[in-house]
Amino acid sequence: MNDSLLDVMRTRRSVRSFRPEAIDDRTIARLLTAATWAPTAGNAQPWYFYVTREEYVRRKLAEAALGQVFVAQAPMVIICCADLERARAAYKLRGETLYCIQDTAAATQNLLLMAHALGLGACWVGAFDENAVIDVLYLPKHHRPLALVPVGYPAQNPVDPGRLPLHKVFSEID
Amino acid sequence: MNDSLLDVMRTRRSVRSFRPEAIDDRTIARLLTAATWAPTAGNAQPWYFYVTREEYVRRKLAEAALGQVFVAQAPMVIICCADLERARAAYKLRGETLYCIQDTAAATQNLLLMAHALGLGACWVGAFDENAVIDVLYLPKHHRPLALVPVGYPAQNPVDPGRLPLHKVFSEID
Repeated sequence: MNDSLLDVMRTRRSVRSFRPEAIDDRTIARLLTAATWAPTAGNAQPWYFYVTREEYVRRKLAEAALGQVFVAQAPMVIICCADLERARAAYKLRGETLYCIQDTAAATQNLLLMAHALGLGACWVGAFDENAVIDVLYLPKHHRPLALVPVGYPAQNPVDPGRLPLHKVFSEID
Repeated sequence: MNDSLLDVMRTRRSVRSFRPEAIDDRTIARLLTAATWAPTAGNAQPWYFYVTREEYVRRKLAEAALGQVFVAQAPMVIICCADLERARAAYKLRGETLYCIQDTAAATQNLLLMAHALGLGACWVGAFDENAVIDVLYLPKHHRPLALVPVGYPAQNPVDPGRLPLHKVFSEID
């Protein structure tokens, strides 16, 4: 299992071009189930996921994402939000400023890994105007959008960007 | 693959009791390799990992983690840090306040999934005094500790905490 798990992690790419085939409800449920099994401090689950398959909404999201048109080209976009209310209720300021960002990021990573394992392509989009996304989706005040994830069947096979060698990002303290 | 991947995600637990067996260098490299294949905005890789197997350091980390003694009981602790310099260089304020937290969280999640797939137990510890950890490890100013992860062979089999049903954390916009 560990070899194939590393393989999923290593071969996942940021996919920015998609075939037009729609994503069905069962696939969406599988992606979100994976997301919600991320670690979460005190099992607070301070996250919320919006899904849209509407072209008009996707186009507005692409605008909010500073014109990244591939966001609209995907047949579906998942908007990963922190639930600030749940975060505050569980852990006050550290919950709201750190844990909910971390938990939602871990959930987003599970979602991306599962998408890749299912043969889908996706991209973690972080460059967007948060207020514009809030306006497009009519989000309640306590939902902070932290990642836009366009998902679809990939129409490209991006090159491996590589990573720094381990010794550049790691040291042992003894 | 997707079924076994979901299985790894669903059966991962926060393990807080460990057998004394040491963790070898090869296993550490596998965990960190998994971590560094997390998604990272612009391939900036704004993370740094410290590993310690020293009992004295682990005891000090347990103190910094508000007395969570299991942190010292594990044979090894990995300290997942954001590299604020690399984050700022790539994306200025949003890099430093958001992306590096997200990227490091996604890396931590990869690390936890790999640990579980290798038969190890681990726990994402977020409750600690950041300045105390900085002091214990003599961290440079640009390394912000974001998670302590004690790792070892598990001496407990924690119960499944469950998750909210999907309809509580998800809605479709159409």
